Amino acid sequence: MALIVQKYGGSSVADAESIKRVAKRIVDTRRAGHDVVVAVSAMGDTTDELLELAHDVAPIPAPRELDMLLSSGERISMALLAMTIHSMGFEARSFTGSQAGMITDSHHGKARIVDVTPVRLREALDEGAIVIVAGFQGFNRDTRDITTLGRGGSDTTAVALAAALNADVCEIYSDVDGIFTADPRVIPRARKLDRISSEEMLELAANGAKVLYIRAVEYARRHGVLIHARSTFSSAEGTYVLGEGMQAPRPSEGEAMEEPIVAGVATDLSQAKITVAGVPDVPGKAAEIFKIVAKSGANVDMIVQNVSAASTGRTDISFTLPKADASSAIKALAAEQSDVGFENLLHDDQIGKLSVVGAGMRTHSGVSAILFEALSAGGINIEMISTSEIRISVVLRGSDLAEAARTVHSAYGLDSEIEAIVHAGTGR
Amino acid sequence: MALIVQKYGGSSVADAESIKRVAKRIVDTRRAGHDVVVAVSAMGDTTDELLELAHDVAPIPAPRELDMLLSSGERISMALLAMTIHSMGFEARSFTGSQAGMITDSHHGKARIVDVTPVRLREALDEGAIVIVAGFQGFNRDTRDITTLGRGGSDTTAVALAAALNADVCEIYSDVDGIFTADPRVIPRARKLDRISSEEMLELAANGAKVLYIRAVEYARRHGVLIHARSTFSSAEGTYVLGEGMQAPRPSEGEAMEEPIVAGVATDLSQAKITVAGVPDVPGKAAEIFKIVAKSGANVDMIVQNVSAASTGRTDISFTLPKADASSAIKALAAEQSDVGFENLLHDDQIGKLSVVGAGMRTHSGVSAILFEALSAGGINIEMISTSEIRISVVLRGSDLAEAARTVHSAYGLDSEIEAIVHAGTGR
Repeated sequence: MALIVQKYGGSSVADAESIKRVAKRIVDTRRAGHDVVVAVSAMGDTTDELLELAHDVAPIPAPRELDMLLSSGERISMALLAMTIHSMGFEARSFTGSQAGMITDSHHGKARIVDVTPVRLREALDEGAIVIVAGFQGFNRDTRDITTLGRGGSDTTAVALAAALNADVCEIYSDVDGIFTADPRVIPRARKLDRISSEEMLELAANGAKVLYIRAVEYARRHGVLIHARSTFSSAEGTYVLGEGMQAPRPSEGEAMEEPIVAGVATDLSQAKITVAGVPDVPGKAAEIFKIVAKSGANVDMIVQNVSAASTGRTDISFTLPKADASSAIKALAAEQSDVGFENLLHDDQIGKLSVVGAGMRTHSGVSAILFEALSAGGINIEMISTSEIRISVVLRGSDLAEAARTVHSAYGLDSEIEAIVHAGTGR
Repeated sequence: MALIVQKYGGSSVADAESIKRVAKRIVDTRRAGHDVVVAVSAMGDTTDELLELAHDVAPIPAPRELDMLLSSGERISMALLAMTIHSMGFEARSFTGSQAGMITDSHHGKARIVDVTPVRLREALDEGAIVIVAGFQGFNRDTRDITTLGRGGSDTTAVALAAALNADVCEIYSDVDGIFTADPRVIPRARKLDRISSEEMLELAANGAKVLYIRAVEYARRHGVLIHARSTFSSAEGTYVLGEGMQAPRPSEGEAMEEPIVAGVATDLSQAKITVAGVPDVPGKAAEIFKIVAKSGANVDMIVQNVSAASTGRTDISFTLPKADASSAIKALAAEQSDVGFENLLHDDQIGKLSVVGAGMRTHSGVSAILFEALSAGGINIEMISTSEIRISVVLRGSDLAEAARTVHSAYGLDSEIEAIVHAGTGR
């Protein structure tokens, strides 16, 4: 008998039918003899609807009250899920973030978990109940106020519960079958991975893969939680995300003795590129520029500085950032143009980023050569390059991204023989 | 400077515009120098929608989970109201039932308040904040579970807060201007009362008047809370509900030195009549019948037993009960027909009940004569009569009820010179 934590996103509990399907799944796990703790998101678009209501009454909603408001979404879904299970003849009890002992700091809207004290959950488990916990929410011990964890909060709730309860596995359910070598909506021949290392998962998630949230994967890695990313629509095994020294419960059939060099290809169309042109090539200018950008609240990703043209003593600095952050960054930079002394600003929101991730890059040479050759053979121009220990990212024209991803996916031998089935919708 | 508790029902906070109107009202009270604590219901039809969702997933929702579900409705409205006030430049903080210290027994769906420990509310008030509390909900200290108070719960929340905080007045806002001598939708010439005694209010509420809930009035009476029933749509004074020895803050102009004999006329179309015909006229039969009816869960109101016809040794027993309870009561009685030995059952759901309420009945004779004369002059047949110390109720044909009420209202001299304005909607 194992202790299994399961997380279901908003699309998995969007209506009465979906809730019944999820309830059946939970009951099946219980019937198999396991203890079950479930973290659940708000139904479908509830959170967006509540946000809209908030903005209807207050231009900038008070953060404490916004958290109070948003946390009601998971109360609804968790109570409905618990009563559904109850009506199937199983004991189920729902708990809010505070009842579950999900203690956070006081940063409303993006609170971080500081402690998990699941006393009531343990009691309920000891009494044979299935435990349902509101994802995405916690409470602060000092202010005694409700908090929310921000994007991907329910994944983090599930992983944190798994860590605190020392669960055998944390199953994160979504509308896809697991982690793929690429987004199946972009590359139909993407292959489901049986397992992936958490460091590779983090790089993929940071570079556009959307199945798991970085924060949850980080938390799992730090606390030794085994994540199993799988589909609500299928009973097939998904993908195990393995931290250092971890092993998947069952090795997959015909598994190679060595890890593949490349785990996957991630694509990202959410970024824009800003070029600060004609920057005086003197020490400290980059620092000046990125201090201004940081102060505007923008989250810079890739940075490339061209070699200075000796004749002018000036250089260009390009960087990428989320499209939504671009206008405030440009405004901030433009306001300081004379102080910094650059010549002009260029804004490009038609870029795409392609990343190849693989732990094998550490020990294998020639991994980047395959990427560059494949893109060159496809006639695709590279605009920026950046690398980490286990990743190579390139910025391309956004219109080239899908084609580039297919080419590169093939070049690394990742193509599956069959096309993946893609379901609609995404969770929170 | 006073401490004022205000209660706003679901129709008062049905959408963003209504919430803004209520927020303005609260802020105006604060601007006038008062401390304000607000109890708020769920927005518009939220509770019904949540109930429907519950019944979509579970035929008989688990009571603990149903309370968890329903309590989310007030979280939404209170957070929205608090952020609206906040955006108007005033400090406002919302509190759930448990945060507000609303401690109840563990009867889910109809919990009773056992204690109110508003420590956090006092802190917030001391810090100058406007306090918003979720109506209708509390929590049980032993199970640490969320409970709901049942019908009229938000009124009770407001009164209980007023009692615990020793507030100067508890203002119950709704879509009508106060307590009327009759339902203005039935009798357009109904007159708003400036004040009414709580015992009269209880009789009116128990007999069909819908502005205030019995439970809240009882709680106010027991704890010496002054209720002021008034309209969300007007700044005019409403009706003060006075317990023993209480006085309205401002006596109304030209107020008589003595109370009027009759305070109001209540009408009720929600009841049905069951007649158990041909009951053997031997001791214990009535007890037998009403034990069966009680076991079926029905709430009996009026009971009338005819004089036995000496020739047959049999009698008829008629009683009224809520229409919704009638079919289960009939089923239960039919199952025991041979044991009880009655001849047959008659069911009549076309009745109407008219009640005249007035504390002056205690000291004035001839009050009932006015009623009977007025009905007789109108050619209206009386089917059942029952009385209490300060009330006379008669059962009539439902189709006669409105006309009867108008006639009786006039006969007691209650008609106003102008017709009342009636707003749509009702609160919880």
